Amino acid sequence: MKFGGTSMAGTERIRRVANIVRRHQEAGHEVAVVVSAMAGETDRLVNFCREANPLYDPAEYDVVVASGEQVTAGLLALTLQAMGCKARSWLGWQLPIHTDDAYAKARIGTIDADNLAASMAAGEIAVIPGFQGLSEANRITTLGRGGSDTSAVAVAAAVKADRCDIYTDVDGVYTTDPRIVAKAKKLKYVTYEEMLELASVGSKVLQTRSVSLAMKEGVRVQVLSSFIDDDAPLADTIPGTMIVSDEELEGLDMESQLITGIAADKNEAKVTLTRVADRPGAVAAIFGPLADANINVDMIIQNIAKDKGETDVTFTVTQADLVRAQALLEGRKDAIGYYRMLTDPKVAKISVVGVGMRSHAGVAADMFKALADRGINIQAISTSEIKVSVLIDADETELAVRVLHTAYGLDAAA
Amino acid sequence: MKFGGTSMAGTERIRRVANIVRRHQEAGHEVAVVVSAMAGETDRLVNFCREANPLYDPAEYDVVVASGEQVTAGLLALTLQAMGCKARSWLGWQLPIHTDDAYAKARIGTIDADNLAASMAAGEIAVIPGFQGLSEANRITTLGRGGSDTSAVAVAAAVKADRCDIYTDVDGVYTTDPRIVAKAKKLKYVTYEEMLELASVGSKVLQTRSVSLAMKEGVRVQVLSSFIDDDAPLADTIPGTMIVSDEELEGLDMESQLITGIAADKNEAKVTLTRVADRPGAVAAIFGPLADANINVDMIIQNIAKDKGETDVTFTVTQADLVRAQALLEGRKDAIGYYRMLTDPKVAKISVVGVGMRSHAGVAADMFKALADRGINIQAISTSEIKVSVLIDADETELAVRVLHTAYGLDAAA
Repeated sequence: MKFGGTSMAGTERIRRVANIVRRHQEAGHEVAVVVSAMAGETDRLVNFCREANPLYDPAEYDVVVASGEQVTAGLLALTLQAMGCKARSWLGWQLPIHTDDAYAKARIGTIDADNLAASMAAGEIAVIPGFQGLSEANRITTLGRGGSDTSAVAVAAAVKADRCDIYTDVDGVYTTDPRIVAKAKKLKYVTYEEMLELASVGSKVLQTRSVSLAMKEGVRVQVLSSFIDDDAPLADTIPGTMIVSDEELEGLDMESQLITGIAADKNEAKVTLTRVADRPGAVAAIFGPLADANINVDMIIQNIAKDKGETDVTFTVTQADLVRAQALLEGRKDAIGYYRMLTDPKVAKISVVGVGMRSHAGVAADMFKALADRGINIQAISTSEIKVSVLIDADETELAVRVLHTAYGLDAAA
Repeated sequence: MKFGGTSMAGTERIRRVANIVRRHQEAGHEVAVVVSAMAGETDRLVNFCREANPLYDPAEYDVVVASGEQVTAGLLALTLQAMGCKARSWLGWQLPIHTDDAYAKARIGTIDADNLAASMAAGEIAVIPGFQGLSEANRITTLGRGGSDTSAVAVAAAVKADRCDIYTDVDGVYTTDPRIVAKAKKLKYVTYEEMLELASVGSKVLQTRSVSLAMKEGVRVQVLSSFIDDDAPLADTIPGTMIVSDEELEGLDMESQLITGIAADKNEAKVTLTRVADRPGAVAAIFGPLADANINVDMIIQNIAKDKGETDVTFTVTQADLVRAQALLEGRKDAIGYYRMLTDPKVAKISVVGVGMRSHAGVAADMFKALADRGINIQAISTSEIKVSVLIDADETELAVRVLHTAYGLDAAA
C-alpha cells in the first residue's frame, strides 16, 4: 500500500491511513506500507537546500530531503502501534533499498527483502519511507520528485506482493479528464502500456517510472482513493483502477474495448523547421543541442523528403521552453541548415489510446473524421502501436476531447 | 566544534556558523562539526510522536526525532560547500556511532572513526548530526534531550581532537549567575569536577553527561559564544571557558583560586522525617519508593542517631515533585516508621565550588560566617570534596549569592 503526501499531512490524517492499513491486515493480508512526506514538507526542505547553496551537492540535498519520509514512516508505525497492530519502520538504508549513485535522481537496483519478508510473515506491518535508497557509497539517495510511487512498486516486486495499492487523491484512471467530459468513466482495468501512454500525455495519476517498473517486474498496481470512509470496501474488491498486463486483461475476458481513453495536453508549443536538408546528422543537429539545454521535446514529426532532398521537421516542447528553444535554434540556423522556423506557442496534443487498436484498423481514420466533422483542423499526426496523437489549436482542446469521447462510445450511461 | 539549535535556526544563521567553521579550517585545523536540530524542531517532532501515540515506542520515536539533526547536518555541509570548502555529512548510522539499545536515552559505546579521520585528513570538513547513533539492532537511536553536547565530546574523543569547542548562547562559565551578581566573572579555566558540581546545581551550560564523558576520555572542552562577529578572535585564543583536568590546570600555574564559583538552585523543596529508626534498611525504605516513583532526590542529610536510636532524615526534591513525595511517604508512614513529616515547599540550595578547597581548611566556616553576618539562616548543610552546599529560605537566594561572591573575593574589578 502506498500513501501520498496529502494522506500523510498531519497526525489526524495519518490515523485515517493507519485505519485503512489495519483493516487490510485484519482481512488476512501481510502488509507493507510505503509513505510520502507530509504535503508541503519536501518543498520546505528543498527550499532550505536552495537557500543554503543554489548549486547544491545532490548527495547532501538527499540527506536533507529524505528526512521528510523518515518522519512520516516513524509516525505511521507509532499510530499503527497505538491501534494495537505490530508495526515497524524500515528506512531505505536499513533494508537496504540499493540504488545507483545518481543522487537526487537515483534508480533502484535491488532490494534486500529477506528481513522485511520475515518481519511481515511474523505479523508485523512494515512501514517504508518512499523516495529514498542507499547508494553504493553507503549514502542516502533519493529517486526524484514523485519517487515514492516507484518505491512502492519496487518493494511490491521485492516481496512478490499480490498487489500494489497506490492511494491517491483521485479514485482511479478515467477514460478522459472528468473535468472536461462529465460522462467520463472510471476504468476498472488498464494495461501497463495504455497507462504509460495516458500518463505521459496528461492523465497524471502515477509517476511514469513506477508504471514502467511495474510492467518490467509484473507488479499488479491498483490506483484508488485515499478519501474513503471507515466502512468503505476493502481494496480486494478493486474499487479503483487495476493496472495489469495484456495477458491478464485478456484472461479477464472483458467486453473488448477498442479505445481505453483519451488524453489531452494543452501545455504544448509547436516548432517547425522548413526545408531541412535530408542528410544523415541533420536531425541530430537539431535535437542534440535541445537536449543539452535540458529542453524536453515531446512529439517529433518528420515526413519523407520532398523536392531537392529537403524536408520539414515539426516538434513540440512545453510552452515554458519555447522561447529558449527558439533562441537556441535561431543561433544555430546555419549549422542546422533550415530555411524558416515557424512556431505556434499554443497547441494541444490529443491522443486516443487503447491496446484494442493493435487488432483493429480504422481507429485513426475514425478520429480524423470525427474531428473534421466538427471543423477541428489537424496540424500534425503521430502514431504508436496503441496510440494516435494529433496536434490541434489549444482553444479547441475540450471540444475535441468531448467529440472523441462520444465517437468512440466511451460516454457513461446517463 | 558543536553548535546548538539557536545557532542552526534557519539558513541565515547556518551561514554564520559555516563562516566560523571556515575560518578555523583556514587557520590550519582539521574540523569536525556536530550540530543540533533547528531550535523548536525537536519539540515539533516530539509533539507529532505524542499525538500519534502517547505511549510511544521509543525506537520509532527515535526514527522521527533524529531527522531534525539530519536536516541541519545536510544544510551545513551544503553551506560550507557554497563557501568553497570541501565538506560532507556523516549520519549516526554511517560512521557509525554505536550505542546501546536504550532507544530515546541511548548511551554511546564506540565510534568507528577511521573513515571520518581519513576524510578530515583529506581536507574535508565533517558535519555530524548530534543526538543520534546506531543500535546493535541496526536501528536509529537518540541520546536524550540535550544529547548533542555528548555527541560532540564523543566524536572529539574518537578523532583524538585537540579540543572540543561547544558554541552556546552564553560566552562561557561564570563565577555565578550574572543575572544575580553583575560583577560575576567569566572563568578562563574550570576543572571537569568543578563543572560537574556547578552544572548539577544550576549553572546550566552543558549537559552533565557530556562533562562526565569529557572527564573520562580526557577531552578538553571549551564553552564559547556562537554570537560572534566575523572578525572575532578564533577559538584558539580561548575566548570562552576551557574545561580541563586538574593536572592541566595545575600545569597552567594560574593564580590559585580557592573558590571557582557559586551556584544557586531555587527550585527545591525540603522534606524532613523526624525520629526515623536508626537501623539497617531504614533509609532504603524511604528512598527506594521515591526512586521507583521517578522522584528525583537531590540533597540527603542524615545526622548521627540521637536518643533512643532515632535520627532525623532531611532531603530535597524539586518543587514540582513535593506533593507526590508527601503523599507517597504519608502512605508508608508505618512501613518506614517515622514520627512526623515536616516540609518546606520553597528552599534554595546555595553551593560554593572549587578544587582549591581540597587543600584549604576553613572554606565552609567562611561560608557560614558570611551568611550569619547577614542574618541568613542555614537550614541544612551538605559537603563534598570540592563543594559546600547549604539550604536556606528561597527568598534569600540572591542576597546569599551576592554575599558569598564578595566574601570569597570573586567580584570583578569595577
